Amino acid sequence: MGSGTGRGLSAAGLASLFAIGAVGGLIGDMCHVESGTTVYLEDPLPYVWKSQLWFPFMVGAGTAALGWIRVRIDGGEERRAGDADRLRRAALMIAAVVGLYALTALMRGEPQPAAIVLVYALALVIAAAFATGPGDLVCACLAALFGVGTEIVLAAADTFAYASDIGRFAGVATWLPGLYLAYGVVAGQLGLLLAAEPREAPPSG
Amino acid sequence: MGSGTGRGLSAAGLASLFAIGAVGGLIGDMCHVESGTTVYLEDPLPYVWKSQLWFPFMVGAGTAALGWIRVRIDGGEERRAGDADRLRRAALMIAAVVGLYALTALMRGEPQPAAIVLVYALALVIAAAFATGPGDLVCACLAALFGVGTEIVLAAADTFAYASDIGRFAGVATWLPGLYLAYGVVAGQLGLLLAAEPREAPPSG
Amino acid sequence: MGSGTGRGLSAAGLASLFAIGAVGGLIGDMCHVESGTTVYLEDPLPYVWKSQLWFPFMVGAGTAALGWIRVRIDGGEERRAGDADRLRRAALMIAAVVGLYALTALMRGEPQPAAIVLVYALALVIAAAFATGPGDLVCACLAALFGVGTEIVLAAADTFAYASDIGRFAGVATWLPGLYLAYGVVAGQLGLLLAAEPREAPPSG
Repeated sequence: MGSGTGRGLSAAGLASLFAIGAVGGLIGDMCHVESGTTVYLEDPLPYVWKSQLWFPFMVGAGTAALGWIRVRIDGGEERRAGDADRLRRAALMIAAVVGLYALTALMRGEPQPAAIVLVYALALVIAAAFATGPGDLVCACLAALFGVGTEIVLAAADTFAYASDIGRFAGVATWLPGLYLAYGVVAGQLGLLLAAEPREAPPSG
Repeated sequence: MGSGTGRGLSAAGLASLFAIGAVGGLIGDMCHVESGTTVYLEDPLPYVWKSQLWFPFMVGAGTAALGWIRVRIDGGEERRAGDADRLRRAALMIAAVVGLYALTALMRGEPQPAAIVLVYALALVIAAAFATGPGDLVCACLAALFGVGTEIVLAAADTFAYASDIGRFAGVATWLPGLYLAYGVVAGQLGLLLAAEPREAPPSG
Repeated sequence: MGSGTGRGLSAAGLASLFAIGAVGGLIGDMCHVESGTTVYLEDPLPYVWKSQLWFPFMVGAGTAALGWIRVRIDGGEERRAGDADRLRRAALMIAAVVGLYALTALMRGEPQPAAIVLVYALALVIAAAFATGPGDLVCACLAALFGVGTEIVLAAADTFAYASDIGRFAGVATWLPGLYLAYGVVAGQLGLLLAAEPREAPPSG
C-alpha cells in the first residue's frame, strides 16, 4: 500500500494531526454549544472548554487516522512545495473547515432548506478546492460514515442532542454529513502535507 | 466566429449544460420558495419540486446558451486539463453559484444594505476566481440582462413576487443582478469545460 | 530597503490605493452604520454617504501606506503577470475583503462566539489565499495594530460606538482585529500589483 514510495507520517506528524484535530474540534464544538446547536446531556467526563473530554479525542484521533490513510493511498503523487507554501496551504484548509463549522452554528432560526443547501455547497467548494486525487474521496466518505455514524449512536443514547429547531435526520443535523465530508478531505490533505520526506535518498550515481 | 478552431459543444455537451442549469435552478428556487424569498402567484403549469415547470426550462436553456456563446467567443484559448481536473473545476464552480443562490435565501430579516453588498462582493469573488477572458464579461452581462429582465417582466405580470421585506427594485431583489453575474460567468466556463475536442485530428504526417 | 530592485509605487499608484481604500471603506462603513453595528456619536465633519469625512481618509491613507510598505519589504519577488490577470486578482482580493466587511455587519443578533470564530476563520482564509511572503504578515499586523488601536481610542473618546449586543473588548468588536488582518494583507498585495515597472531597464550588454 504505497510503502514503496518511502514516504509516510512520522510519530511527530501523527501527533501534529491529532493536535490540529483536537483544537479545531474544540473551537467548533464551542460554537455549537454556545449557540445551543448542540447540548451535552451526560457529562461523565470532565469538560475541556465547552466539550466533554471524549470529543477532542475523537476528532483528534480521526484526523490522525484520515491523514495516515490518505498518505497510504497515493501519498507519492504529492507535488513538492516549500515550507512556507505548505504552512500557507495548511492554514487555508484548516481555516476553511473551522469557518464552515462556525457557520453551521449560525443556522438555527434560518430557513432550514436553504441553510442545508448552503452548507453542502460550501462543503463541496472546500472539497473541490483542495482535493488532489481519488484518496480524497475515500477520506471524505470515511469521515462522513464514521463521524455521522458515531454521532447518530451517541444522539440515540442521549449523550448529547441537536436543537429541535434544526433540520435533522436520525437525531443529527441534516447538514452534518456535509461538514464531515469537507473535514475528511482536509484531514487527508493535512496528512499529505505532513508526510515525511523519503527516509533514504535514492542513490545518485 | 471561432469555428476555425474546430472546437465546439456537441449535442451531449449542450444537453449536459441544460441538465446542470435545470437541476441547479431547481435547488436554488427551492431555497427561495421555502424561505419565502419568492412566491409563485400563478401556477398554470405543473410544479417540479417547488418550481413552476417553466423555471428549470428557463435556467437550463440559459445555461446551454451561455455555454455555447462562451465557446464561440474564445473557446480556442482554453488550456487543456485532465478529466479529473475538469470535473473538480466544474464541481467547484457549480457549488459556488448554488451556495450563493442559497445564501440569498437567508437574507430576509437581515439589514438589507449589508446583505446586498455581501451578495455583490461574493458574486465578484466568484467571477474573478473563475473568469479567464473577455468572453466571461459578455456572458455575465448577458445573464444579468436577460435573467433580471425576464424576472422584472414576470414580476410585473404578477406571475411571482419577491417578499416585501427584501431590498427591491422594479419588483425584483436588489441582489439579483449579482447572482446572475456570477451565474453567467460559471455557465460560460462550464461551456468551455464541456467543449468537444477537435472533431478531426490534424494530419500527423 | 529594496530600492535596489528599481521598483516602487508611483504617485498614481499611491493615489489609486488611496481611492480603493477610501471607496471600500465607505461601502463597508455604510453596511456597519445601516445595520446599527456602529453609530457616530460626534459629527464635527461633514458626512460622506454614511461616514464622517475622517473615516474614508483614514482607510485610504492606511491602504496607501500599507501598499508602500509591502513593496519596500519584498516587492522585487513578485511574479510578472499580464494586466488582465492583475486586474482579476485585484478584483478578487478587494471583493473578498469588502465581503468580509459586509458579513461583519450581519453578526448582530447571532450567537457571538460562533460569529467571532467565523470572521477570524474567513480572515485567515483570505490572508492565506493571497499572502505571498513575510511582508504580508508585517502588513497584517501593522493594519491590526494601528486600525484597532485607532478605533479603541476613538471609541474611548465617544466619537463612535459599537452596538452593545456585539461581542466587544476595549469598546470595539471582538471580530475587528480579524477584519483588519485580512485588510492588511490585501492592501499590501494591492501595492505589489500596482508597483511600477523598473524605471530604468538594466543595461543589456
